[in-house]
Amino acid sequence: MPLLVMKFGGTSVADLGRIENAARKVKAEVARGYDVIVIVSAMSGRTNEMVGWVEATSKLYDAREYDAVVSSGENVTAGLMALRLQEMDVPARSWQGWQVPINTTSAHGAARFVSIPRENIDAKFAEGFKVAVVAGFQGVSPEGRVTTLGRGGSDTTAVAFAAAFNAERCDIYTDVDGVYTTDPRITKKARKLDRIAFEEMLELASLGAKVLQTRSVELAMRYKVRLRVVSSFEEVTDTSGTLVCDEEDIMESKVVSGVAYSRDEAKMTLLKVEDRPGVAAAIFGTLADAGVNVDMIVQNISELATPAATRAYTDMTFSLPTNQVDRARVAIEAAVAGGAFAFSELVTDTDVAKISVVGIGMRSQVGVAARMFAALAAENVNIKVITTSEIKISVLIDRKYMELAVQALHDTFELEKA
Amino acid sequence: MPLLVMKFGGTSVADLGRIENAARKVKAEVARGYDVIVIVSAMSGRTNEMVGWVEATSKLYDAREYDAVVSSGENVTAGLMALRLQEMDVPARSWQGWQVPINTTSAHGAARFVSIPRENIDAKFAEGFKVAVVAGFQGVSPEGRVTTLGRGGSDTTAVAFAAAFNAERCDIYTDVDGVYTTDPRITKKARKLDRIAFEEMLELASLGAKVLQTRSVELAMRYKVRLRVVSSFEEVTDTSGTLVCDEEDIMESKVVSGVAYSRDEAKMTLLKVEDRPGVAAAIFGTLADAGVNVDMIVQNISELATPAATRAYTDMTFSLPTNQVDRARVAIEAAVAGGAFAFSELVTDTDVAKISVVGIGMRSQVGVAARMFAALAAENVNIKVITTSEIKISVLIDRKYMELAVQALHDTFELEKA
Repeated sequence: MPLLVMKFGGTSVADLGRIENAARKVKAEVARGYDVIVIVSAMSGRTNEMVGWVEATSKLYDAREYDAVVSSGENVTAGLMALRLQEMDVPARSWQGWQVPINTTSAHGAARFVSIPRENIDAKFAEGFKVAVVAGFQGVSPEGRVTTLGRGGSDTTAVAFAAAFNAERCDIYTDVDGVYTTDPRITKKARKLDRIAFEEMLELASLGAKVLQTRSVELAMRYKVRLRVVSSFEEVTDTSGTLVCDEEDIMESKVVSGVAYSRDEAKMTLLKVEDRPGVAAAIFGTLADAGVNVDMIVQNISELATPAATRAYTDMTFSLPTNQVDRARVAIEAAVAGGAFAFSELVTDTDVAKISVVGIGMRSQVGVAARMFAALAAENVNIKVITTSEIKISVLIDRKYMELAVQALHDTFELEKA
Repeated sequence: MPLLVMKFGGTSVADLGRIENAARKVKAEVARGYDVIVIVSAMSGRTNEMVGWVEATSKLYDAREYDAVVSSGENVTAGLMALRLQEMDVPARSWQGWQVPINTTSAHGAARFVSIPRENIDAKFAEGFKVAVVAGFQGVSPEGRVTTLGRGGSDTTAVAFAAAFNAERCDIYTDVDGVYTTDPRITKKARKLDRIAFEEMLELASLGAKVLQTRSVELAMRYKVRLRVVSSFEEVTDTSGTLVCDEEDIMESKVVSGVAYSRDEAKMTLLKVEDRPGVAAAIFGTLADAGVNVDMIVQNISELATPAATRAYTDMTFSLPTNQVDRARVAIEAAVAGGAFAFSELVTDTDVAKISVVGIGMRSQVGVAARMFAALAAENVNIKVITTSEIKISVLIDRKYMELAVQALHDTFELEKA
């Protein structure tokens, strides 16, 4: 029996009416002859509510308890979806992470898949069940504790199941009808893309485009899962949405495919770090151990060693999500107290945003960075940090210029034109 | 290390502030030298919300999915309580039912304990944890599905843990400061009891007194668990609350200890049931299989067999929770269609309430029933069904007379006097 994975995000299952709407889409695929694995998120707002409770209870919380709490929302949706499907005469049952089991690492709050054995779910399909409704975002650690994959982890769950069960396609149902050149709330000129390359989607996702979670795209690319982003709130046809696919399947690429932004960025700078081999490893090892997601890293020389001075110093700047600043500061202070490294001052700027342009066409075209910087300069936007990769260029700027910068870049690269 | 079980109901953990208040009480017991097993309910209102979702999704729901959904609220509270205790420097972790594991039968929605192995929690106490926060109300079936024990099941969880871990005492923290002669909302004359016998508490609980759940009292009586009902919202001392204890520990009993009521009762009557051996077993077996909690049963002869008539007929009346009427009707109709039994008409009355007087003193005193019926007659309350046991007398009456009847009986038996 051919198999589909269908994933419904929080807004697509926000209330009982929407769960029913989603169930109808599942039933339609069953009627077309598919076995279906449905991956569900928590009802919109629920996870945030629980995260709020956890953070209000404990600032530096035990991530195992965080996971035990916030994973509960998906269990609720999975049960309700299974019930709704049963009401529509579709044989279905719900699965919590530990029941499948979805085996993950013990990295609570950011766990990674170890294995998804097929036996239990396959046995139910063999018994005549047509749909397995799986709680997204969660798994179980080797110690038997509930883990979560981090925010947006339900996308990753969907792709992992599509890979494990050799699904024909993995459809991500969400509240937008596809991937856009940029956020349509920021410019009306934003245009839906019919196709986008895995690599581009990966950059856009990691840069804050909310449509798909980074790791889900990574995983889809690695396992060649055909991934489609479609709207829960429209009639879906074969040509709906945006197909995320191999670069070869895209006829003609523009230099830049999209402009992404991330509002909740912070920048931390360690001034006058004693510059010796291993100091960067010590700093970022400390942050990684504390579960801080460091994004951009820039190192400048601040003071050269001279014959008179026995030591050289450097400034180390990195960006991270705003809500991890406290965690990072505590980890750094503890490491300094333990003698791991030393610096003169810690400067934190929680008022920045990241803007990125992305496109596989960049590889074969020079001068993209220059055009980007010129466009920002023309709007008097000061650039604080720059990083580049093969297919993207990212800058940190003052948050107040974020919308302006996105609009300027969208215009400069003519993204409104197909 | 001596061990206490402390159970906090929904109103005692209704928000983060109350969870903190409860955690302080736990920390105080740890400071007194106890290891503590904390059993938590869902935050007040949460379970009802989820039950509402399930019932709105599916009227005759799959109880396995119901359990998967409604058990999630306790997991949230358990995690938050563990975090709050950690913040107070009390080593604590949360436990979901399947993690302990709390092994139950597969009777979803009304599962019973099979075993609570101590190994996993004992191992954590041995590691230095002082508190195990266990999600109440839930367990895991032999098939690996989440089960629930039915409403109020967290009390039962608490007593079961107290028995399994040989706890010194099981304290049930709730929003009232003990067990009263009747519901103080119905009469201001209601009086708190310092002690009550297990048997009386059992009858009061099964009759709708909301303080403790029936099965928890049963279990406490069987395993001789010292059970105490105390308020979450007062300073608790050694003499607080109501101690539920053996009859011998109560110096002097009144004839009647309390008046209980149950508002959500329905009465169903099968008219002209063909009266043959096994017909009652067929009817109530059908209802039991459908998970209907039949309470009172009354059988009257409606038509005697005569030499001319080859068959005798009987009327069969039973009471059940109002929300199980549909379920009962469907089960009965299916059984009739299958030829299990036959009757002429099904009469349903969803507008009744049950009033009971309870007291171990009744055993040695005659005329209690006559006093009860006289008191009701004096208020012109018509009695529809009567059942009695050794220490209680229950009647069904029109719901609109419920408060009046409770007040009249409280006065008649002078329950306001200690």
